[in-house]
Amino acid sequence: MSITRVHNFSVSLDGFGTGEGLTREAPFGHAGERLHDWMFATGWDGAFDVDHAFARLHDPGIGAEIMGSRKYGPPGWEDDPDWRGYWGPNPPFHTPVYVLTRHARPPIEMEGGTVFHFTDAPPAEALATARAAADGRDVRIGGGPTMLRDYLAAGLIDHMHLVVVPILLGRGVRLWDGLEGIEADYRVEATGSPSGVTHLTFTRTTA
Amino acid sequence: MSITRVHNFSVSLDGFGTGEGLTREAPFGHAGERLHDWMFATGWDGAFDVDHAFARLHDPGIGAEIMGSRKYGPPGWEDDPDWRGYWGPNPPFHTPVYVLTRHARPPIEMEGGTVFHFTDAPPAEALATARAAADGRDVRIGGGPTMLRDYLAAGLIDHMHLVVVPILLGRGVRLWDGLEGIEADYRVEATGSPSGVTHLTFTRTTA
Repeated sequence: MSITRVHNFSVSLDGFGTGEGLTREAPFGHAGERLHDWMFATGWDGAFDVDHAFARLHDPGIGAEIMGSRKYGPPGWEDDPDWRGYWGPNPPFHTPVYVLTRHARPPIEMEGGTVFHFTDAPPAEALATARAAADGRDVRIGGGPTMLRDYLAAGLIDHMHLVVVPILLGRGVRLWDGLEGIEADYRVEATGSPSGVTHLTFTRTTA
Repeated sequence: MSITRVHNFSVSLDGFGTGEGLTREAPFGHAGERLHDWMFATGWDGAFDVDHAFARLHDPGIGAEIMGSRKYGPPGWEDDPDWRGYWGPNPPFHTPVYVLTRHARPPIEMEGGTVFHFTDAPPAEALATARAAADGRDVRIGGGPTMLRDYLAAGLIDHMHLVVVPILLGRGVRLWDGLEGIEADYRVEATGSPSGVTHLTFTRTTA
């Protein structure tokens, strides 16, 4: 069965999934790389500790991703016809990627199998499209915090791996607003790491 | 050296240290006992797992506590001359306790060594008074979230044990507002527990 999965989504201790003041040079604003230091530190270098173990779950079994507009580009990318995402010619997705935006444009085929599609469909409809494209494999819900919050609120997340980073951003975009009680639908496990982060997994227990 | 310590302070995943709608019957409002289930589950029964280990650090070496008005009583306790706290005749403090309130009243001597004092002093001044009373021992900063946030913002916390409980309260009193960057003054460690909570310790590394 094809499920929806979130991997490596990092939040500060005070619940921000990204900082304030997002730009092309600072995709996470004043947060800089602090939310993802734990992940870059793995270097995807083939080691086997807990941070590596979780980081590697990002790709296997995924057939499509859905991402928010602010993950794809900084404010204003919609007005730049040449913008093709932050990841260079060969993005690390290697599947269809559905970018949620009110500004439609034709699909962009990148190297390595990534194809960016642009859609203004609501969560359930975008998921149905991505699931069809995933052809039996799972759909990754890619973030940022705003779209992840929408998918959580709509009950559309089956598995979620969050990483709580022990920093206080103080400002930015909150993940958790308006989600009172959603833990009732999940089994939640917390695993500390020597790197200082906490890996949280949410596994859906309700149909 | 006498330091300030926070123990067993529990917050929801979305950062609330207490719920909404505090009453005499529901001291944590709609949060109920969910923030402290992990602690009650220990039963202080002499076992030796990680939750017990942390819970037991509450008392040793403490010579005084400072607590906020909302920990001492529900909204309106100031108008009840007979209110003596939530804890019955023998409260679990056994030291002087300084209650931060704008409504002064004479000290109340309870059984077992607890004496409630009432003061409207600002954080540093209340701490100086409590430290003098502690006579070389440490001062526990007892919460709730509002007073703890004030003490953190004032740089007056030396050791802090927080417990992140995997529930989403959605509303209540936030601990973390306005504390951007305070982690720079601490070494932070995160320890998962089979009970599902995460124990965080903040140990001051700056003078």
